[in-house]
Amino acid sequence: MKTFYYIDISTPSHQALVSINDRVREGVRALALVEGVAHLFVLHTTCGLTINENADPAVADDILRRLESLVPWHDARDQHREGNSSAHLRSSLMGSSLSVVVQGGKLVLGTWQGIFLAEFDCPRSRQVIMTALK
Amino acid sequence: MKTFYYIDISTPSHQALVSINDRVREGVRALALVEGVAHLFVLHTTCGLTINENADPAVADDILRRLESLVPWHDARDQHREGNSSAHLRSSLMGSSLSVVVQGGKLVLGTWQGIFLAEFDCPRSRQVIMTALK
Amino acid sequence: MKTFYYIDISTPSHQALVSINDRVREGVRALALVEGVAHLFVLHTTCGLTINENADPAVADDILRRLESLVPWHDARDQHREGNSSAHLRSSLMGSSLSVVVQGGKLVLGTWQGIFLAEFDCPRSRQVIMTALK
Repeated sequence: MKTFYYIDISTPSHQALVSINDRVREGVRALALVEGVAHLFVLHTTCGLTINENADPAVADDILRRLESLVPWHDARDQHREGNSSAHLRSSLMGSSLSVVVQGGKLVLGTWQGIFLAEFDCPRSRQVIMTALK
Repeated sequence: MKTFYYIDISTPSHQALVSINDRVREGVRALALVEGVAHLFVLHTTCGLTINENADPAVADDILRRLESLVPWHDARDQHREGNSSAHLRSSLMGSSLSVVVQGGKLVLGTWQGIFLAEFDCPRSRQVIMTALK
Repeated sequence: MKTFYYIDISTPSHQALVSINDRVREGVRALALVEGVAHLFVLHTTCGLTINENADPAVADDILRRLESLVPWHDARDQHREGNSSAHLRSSLMGSSLSVVVQGGKLVLGTWQGIFLAEFDCPRSRQVIMTALK
C-alpha cells in the first residue's frame, strides 16, 4: 500500500487559487484512506495551501486582490534580489501544510469549502505531497 | 471506540474569538486519546481556528480590532455579492485546521494558550470535527 | 521508544526567524520516525512556526520588516497592558502548529524550504513539542 501520493499542479497565472479537490480525492483512493486525516504539504516557498469558498469564483478573486493590497508586490525596501518577497510572506500567511478529514473513504468538507493551491509567483509547476494519517 | 468527535459552537456576535478548550478536552476523553495529537477542522469558510492568549480577554479584542483594520469589512472593489469577502480572507489567514498535543490523556498547552474558534461573519452555528491521531 | 521530542530555542532578538531544521532532524532520529509526518507545536502566544526560504537571509528580513508594516508594534487603541498585542496577532497569522513529511527517515523539504520559529516579542526561551505521526 502506498504511503505517499504526489499531486503535480500547473498554475495558470501570476496569482491564482487553483482548486485541488479532485486531485485530493484521487489521493484518498490511491492511499486507501478510509477513516482519518489526509495531510497535504507543498514543497515551495512562494505559494501556499488554503481552504476557502469553492462556489462563487468571485471569492477567490476578492481574496487575491485584497492580498495584493495587504502585501503589495512592489516594496522599495525589499532586499531579496529575486523581487518576490511579497510572495514569500503571502506563502507564510496561508501556510505550507494543511490537513482534511476523511470518513468512509470520502473527503469531509463543508458545503462551501474547497482546497486550493494558492499561487503567488508566476505560472509554475508545483508539487504537493499527500500522506494518510489514520 | 469513536474515531471522530463533533463540537457544535454557537457564536455570540459578528466577530468573536470563542474559547473551545473545554470542548476539546471533552473530545480528548470521548476519543480515548492518551498519547498523540488531536486534529481540529472547521467546516466553514468565514471563520477559522487559532491558538492565542486565554488569560487577558483584551488580547482577543485587540486581535479582532487589528484584523478589522488589516482586512476591512467594506471594500468597494469586492465582487462577491454576499459582501463578506473580508471574512473569507480572514478565515484563510487564521486557517481551517490546527492540531494540539495530548500527553497522558491531557491536552498540552502553554501557560497562556487557549484554542479559539474565530468567528468573522455573524452569530452562527459552527461545527468542528475532531480526530485522534496516535 | 519516545513519543514526544522537545526542542528548546533561545531566540536572538526582538523579532527573528530562527531556523530549526537541524533540531527537527535530530527529533526525527530520536523519535525513530521513518515514514510519516512530524508534527510541531509551539507552546507560546507571541511567536509562531512557519516554513519559508532558507537560502537567502534577505527573505527572512523582508518578511519581518513587511510584517512590522502590516501589524505595527505600536497601536494606541490596544487594550492589552503588556503592549505586545502585535506579537499576538502575528502569532495567529503564522500559526502555532505545522507538520512536515518524513520519508526513509529523512525530512522532506523543497529545495528552498526551511522550518523557522518566528519570534515576535523579545529574545526568549521557547519550546516546541514534536510528535511522530505514522
